[in-house]
Amino acid sequence: MATLKDIGLAAAFNIGSAFAFFLAFAILKIQPFNDRVYFPKWYLKGLRSSPIHGRALVKKFVNLDLQSYIRFLNWMHDALKMPEPELIDHAGLDSAVYLRIYLMGLKIFVPIACLAWTILIPINWTNDTLSTVARIKNITASDIDNLSISNIPQGSQRFWAHIAMAYAFTFWTCYVLLKEYETVADMRFHFLLTERRRPDQFSVLVRNVPPDPDESVSELVEHFFLVNHPNNYLSSQVVYNANKLADLVEKKKKMQNWFDYYHLKFARNNTKRPFIKTGFWGLWGKKTDAIDYYISEIEKVSEEIAAERERVASDPKSIVPAAFVSFKTRWAAAVCAQTQQFRNPTLWLTDWAPEPQDVYWPNLAIPYVSLTLRRLIMGMAFFFLTFFFLIPITIVQSLASIEGLEKAFPFLSHLLKIQFVQAFIAGVLPGLVLKLFLMFLPSILMIMSKFEGFISISSLERRSASRYYLFNLVNTFLCNVIVGSALQQLKSFIHQPPTEIAKTFGMAIPMKATFFITFIMVDGWAGVAADILRIKPLVMFHLKNLFLVKTEKDRESAMDPGSIEFHAREPRIQLYFLLGLVYATVTPILLPFILVFFALGYVVFRHQVINVYSQEYESAAAFWPAVHGRVIMALVISQVLLMGLLTTKAAALSTPFLIALPILTIYFHRFCKGRYEPAFIRYPLEEAMMKDTLERAREPNLNVKSYLQNAFLHPVFRGDDDRDENEMEEIMKWENESDLVPTKRTSRRTTPAASKIGSSTPSSQHEGQMVP
Amino acid sequence: MATLKDIGLAAAFNIGSAFAFFLAFAILKIQPFNDRVYFPKWYLKGLRSSPIHGRALVKKFVNLDLQSYIRFLNWMHDALKMPEPELIDHAGLDSAVYLRIYLMGLKIFVPIACLAWTILIPINWTNDTLSTVARIKNITASDIDNLSISNIPQGSQRFWAHIAMAYAFTFWTCYVLLKEYETVADMRFHFLLTERRRPDQFSVLVRNVPPDPDESVSELVEHFFLVNHPNNYLSSQVVYNANKLADLVEKKKKMQNWFDYYHLKFARNNTKRPFIKTGFWGLWGKKTDAIDYYISEIEKVSEEIAAERERVASDPKSIVPAAFVSFKTRWAAAVCAQTQQFRNPTLWLTDWAPEPQDVYWPNLAIPYVSLTLRRLIMGMAFFFLTFFFLIPITIVQSLASIEGLEKAFPFLSHLLKIQFVQAFIAGVLPGLVLKLFLMFLPSILMIMSKFEGFISISSLERRSASRYYLFNLVNTFLCNVIVGSALQQLKSFIHQPPTEIAKTFGMAIPMKATFFITFIMVDGWAGVAADILRIKPLVMFHLKNLFLVKTEKDRESAMDPGSIEFHAREPRIQLYFLLGLVYATVTPILLPFILVFFALGYVVFRHQVINVYSQEYESAAAFWPAVHGRVIMALVISQVLLMGLLTTKAAALSTPFLIALPILTIYFHRFCKGRYEPAFIRYPLEEAMMKDTLERAREPNLNVKSYLQNAFLHPVFRGDDDRDENEMEEIMKWENESDLVPTKRTSRRTTPAASKIGSSTPSSQHEGQMVP
Repeated sequence: MATLKDIGLAAAFNIGSAFAFFLAFAILKIQPFNDRVYFPKWYLKGLRSSPIHGRALVKKFVNLDLQSYIRFLNWMHDALKMPEPELIDHAGLDSAVYLRIYLMGLKIFVPIACLAWTILIPINWTNDTLSTVARIKNITASDIDNLSISNIPQGSQRFWAHIAMAYAFTFWTCYVLLKEYETVADMRFHFLLTERRRPDQFSVLVRNVPPDPDESVSELVEHFFLVNHPNNYLSSQVVYNANKLADLVEKKKKMQNWFDYYHLKFARNNTKRPFIKTGFWGLWGKKTDAIDYYISEIEKVSEEIAAERERVASDPKSIVPAAFVSFKTRWAAAVCAQTQQFRNPTLWLTDWAPEPQDVYWPNLAIPYVSLTLRRLIMGMAFFFLTFFFLIPITIVQSLASIEGLEKAFPFLSHLLKIQFVQAFIAGVLPGLVLKLFLMFLPSILMIMSKFEGFISISSLERRSASRYYLFNLVNTFLCNVIVGSALQQLKSFIHQPPTEIAKTFGMAIPMKATFFITFIMVDGWAGVAADILRIKPLVMFHLKNLFLVKTEKDRESAMDPGSIEFHAREPRIQLYFLLGLVYATVTPILLPFILVFFALGYVVFRHQVINVYSQEYESAAAFWPAVHGRVIMALVISQVLLMGLLTTKAAALSTPFLIALPILTIYFHRFCKGRYEPAFIRYPLEEAMMKDTLERAREPNLNVKSYLQNAFLHPVFRGDDDRDENEMEEIMKWENESDLVPTKRTSRRTTPAASKIGSSTPSSQHEGQMVP
Repeated sequence: MATLKDIGLAAAFNIGSAFAFFLAFAILKIQPFNDRVYFPKWYLKGLRSSPIHGRALVKKFVNLDLQSYIRFLNWMHDALKMPEPELIDHAGLDSAVYLRIYLMGLKIFVPIACLAWTILIPINWTNDTLSTVARIKNITASDIDNLSISNIPQGSQRFWAHIAMAYAFTFWTCYVLLKEYETVADMRFHFLLTERRRPDQFSVLVRNVPPDPDESVSELVEHFFLVNHPNNYLSSQVVYNANKLADLVEKKKKMQNWFDYYHLKFARNNTKRPFIKTGFWGLWGKKTDAIDYYISEIEKVSEEIAAERERVASDPKSIVPAAFVSFKTRWAAAVCAQTQQFRNPTLWLTDWAPEPQDVYWPNLAIPYVSLTLRRLIMGMAFFFLTFFFLIPITIVQSLASIEGLEKAFPFLSHLLKIQFVQAFIAGVLPGLVLKLFLMFLPSILMIMSKFEGFISISSLERRSASRYYLFNLVNTFLCNVIVGSALQQLKSFIHQPPTEIAKTFGMAIPMKATFFITFIMVDGWAGVAADILRIKPLVMFHLKNLFLVKTEKDRESAMDPGSIEFHAREPRIQLYFLLGLVYATVTPILLPFILVFFALGYVVFRHQVINVYSQEYESAAAFWPAVHGRVIMALVISQVLLMGLLTTKAAALSTPFLIALPILTIYFHRFCKGRYEPAFIRYPLEEAMMKDTLERAREPNLNVKSYLQNAFLHPVFRGDDDRDENEMEEIMKWENESDLVPTKRTSRRTTPAASKIGSSTPSSQHEGQMVP
């Protein structure tokens, strides 16, 4: 068991590394050539221009202003300065509410920590159970354990304090949760009421349009809604299966990149035209002139794209049985989205249309029966992934051992005899395999969610997040409390009575406090601090800048602002809620470490949200019910574990008082679900009507139909066309003249603004590019 | 263990008693003076008139046609003769679909029984495990056990046959369930489309109207819906808290009955005016002339009613924050019922309006917060009722012992010394107490559901049914499989691992087969046969006929047609599904007994539905999803128990093959839920629009507003008024002249027709009786 001194050492080390990260960040950030890596959001918004222009050559790349080095923690202050309404305006509601999760952590745990330190720690401290035991058994008790519940003798009356505290903590947590739910729901309503006109406010997505031998999908949809929503129906937009087309466009883009690369290479060194081999991966095959080759390839693909575009537009088979249906008013859209249209509830399914940017196009055509089957398969797959993931890992690890490698790749045997290589394989590889798997886990879960058939990116992320949380709960929390694989845990769940399980876990909880304290410091302190450095985007940007960037526009697309990545980050925050709630009554000394995590995370991610991340979509905080639900789950787990622990402590009389807690907590959850969850799923008619009325008063002559015309066109049919043509022209031009003319046009294809303001005038922008 | 001979004896006895009931029924039924007891539905429909008029005096009361005694089982044929569409027309969809539950039992179990008898019984029979064991241990194995799975040796390969059969039975059951769900959903849509115009088709019930200092509830409702459903809103009807008024009306009715009684007594014996004592229960107090007393009392109550009616109509406090809102079209009502109106989802709650007859008025004013709290309390109360009900029963039983009674009522000690009384108390009373409790259980559960705040009688019955099923599952099924109280079962559930529980129950299952066979015969055969006798209504009718009936109209209200009583009967049918599915693979010999139950039940209740029961309301088979869900639950239980049983049989290799079954079954349930349940909860807009369009074409000049005017008035404000006045006049008339003039007017207050046709013209009928 670690002593306070050990913990202090670890803390010093982790604080040190966190500071090192911050220092590195501060230095890298103020170098002008990194400006686009650390402030991409401002570029995307068009509010910041490159500091490189119009400076001395050295100053273009290195910051020589020494003062700015001294104020290296100033960014924290800047990040906290922006008020919340401005933040919502700047980064969207999703980001602002995401930050509130950290804030909620502080709100919950600051009072709990104060209470626990003033009441529970003295109560635990003023016993001598452990020191007596230690004296008898001649071992030294750790200081941490002296401060935990373990120090209280069996059957002591002091446990009443812990029970009272469990009640107090539960009530306080529920109170904060309730207030937060209320606030977020209000913020959402306010956001929806004040946000600009968006096409999805007027539209629903109808899926599973039944096949009809006599009518096309578009006619069918039009007739159905003209009959069933006679005064409200406005227009409809069928969905094309343009996955192949999208692939081709993607391919062309890649070619374009290569062309840019060789083009730039040639431009810099005008003497030698670059050559490439056309075979596999450019490793063998005929040698040709790279620029000519890519020009011809791009032309070829462009022709293919044109042909495919023609085919998609004319072939009725490329129309999937789904459509975006738009209505004259938001009220009518709200009505259609919330009601059942057809007697068979699996046909003519209507849902709110996601934002155009949020649509996950490949999933729009999945039929209902297949949907439930896909959920079943993925449910089972997730079960196996959670409890059996160690099996393939172990196989890979055994393969990655020295003997395994020798067998698989005999030609490596010489290499494997080197001492250093042996040490690396034995010591590092197994851990690396596991680490790699865990790194890719969110992506794996994301692929699983995609297979399940969700139709918007936001819902994909929400589903992945909930799965990731469960995985973490089993494999990070439970497996570390009782050492053993998830499979062993599963066996004990099946073969042990529930009371026994609660006891085993409850007993193990206090012993694992030091482990989790170290975990919090490494993962929560240093990890969060490392996030701000953005090492991968930094490297990628400079590589791209070196090899691909030709124009300002290219430089813009070389920036990778990233996004919050809700599906990967939120479940990890939830782990800290779980740890905090479980240890609040058991080992309160853990709480300050959690507080530091929440505070640090809040500042760091507030900075990132303001300066870096660019959200792809705006779901108006639709994830909050899931966040709330997971905190409730953590609360119930903490109560059950405390019950188990107290049972083993022979506090039999007091334990029954704890049974009421989980019941009350679950009841509270159901109350919140009924009271607040509809705000995140449905759109009240009153709000819709209010917004319609306001709009009618403000813009009486608004033509909604033309506004909505091409809002829900597949992205490959949209505005990108003109860019393509522009580029082709450019290429042709280059063929003729050979000097670069950087265009002034700024592209906003993937800007965060697009997500909020975006398609406010798409009809004028994309006029004439609709599918014929 | 019982042998086949014992079972045969019991079967003979129960078949005998069933026949005795049928014989008694046949004899009683064809006596003219019982006609109203056994054919009340036809009287209520006005399709049958009393056979007493215009016959010889003897023939009026006793049937002397000997031929009709011979054809004493003819009613079965008559009951089966009526085709289903006619049955729906005659008795409503609820009754017709209720009968389909028995039919579904036959559809599921006839093929299962055939398969099990041809395959499983030979496989079980051709072993000699039990006879070997018996020879060694010198006991005789019962024949029943030789036919069951117990006869197969440990670890035999023959268990594969049982596993294959488990799969076959599951697939067949699911197939039948799917087909039935589909059929019932179609029947419901067809019924809704073709049924007559009903006020609830145009109306929604809005609850939790928020208080407003400036506007009355009625103004508030009108404004809110005029704003948010501008083109569709038609009218609204506030809800009065008329519970006190309803009590007064009830009191007046009672007085009226007593008046009728004494009035009739005096009319028969004109010499002596009847006297009563006005004190407690008529036991002491001043002696007065009974007729004069009741006349003055009735007048007094009438005045009170008038005053209360005035108060309710004028006092704004008697208006509860709820209202029935009617729309111009069914489409608009469907929209309003399925959408959220207000940003706070606990205010302005809209739901389909129940049928006017179906409304449970006292619950309309319960606020949302209180609703969730009530559910929590009742959930806990039900938990305690299920697992701890034996505790109060035991207390009452100990009180009902000889010592207990002697202590409580010392003055009875002489009586308690009589041998016969002692035997009665010791032998019969404890069982009687339990029996009484179980008899009143459905009523207790109904009161609990009422407390929970459901607003329609149909939903009250559905909730009670699901609770009754769970109670039966625990206390009839589980507690009989493993002898022990529910409390002991609960303890083992908590303290044993789940696999252990499945094993214990699985092992006990085959041993309990003979017990359940006897149970099926007593409860399922003789019990169902006894139902047709209608002993309680028979006695009550003749008593009322003797003492109260004055006119034809009174005779009509003396009939007690009863109803299906879904909440008490359906859960008991479900027990047979459970037994059938559990024993299908284990002891197939039980199946024919189940088949007899379903066949008998189908015939008996088809007769009752056609000739007797009068449904209070029509929910259009809204209970089917619950029926379906409970059969699925039985299926899963049967699979888990089989798994437990096979584990103990050392068929370890084969058991894992069974794990897929519950997973597939639950997946099937989820599929059905998604596919068919919405048909029972929502009303698709297409159907509503179709019905609206048809109606507009047929009756272009229909005035919906006047049609709906008073449809949702509290029953005490409705048509009964004219009856009251009529009666007062009658009483006054009697005061003057002394001979009876039976009125020809037939009242249809509680007719079944009212439920379907009912208020089709209430505006003309109740004109002028609305609240001032």
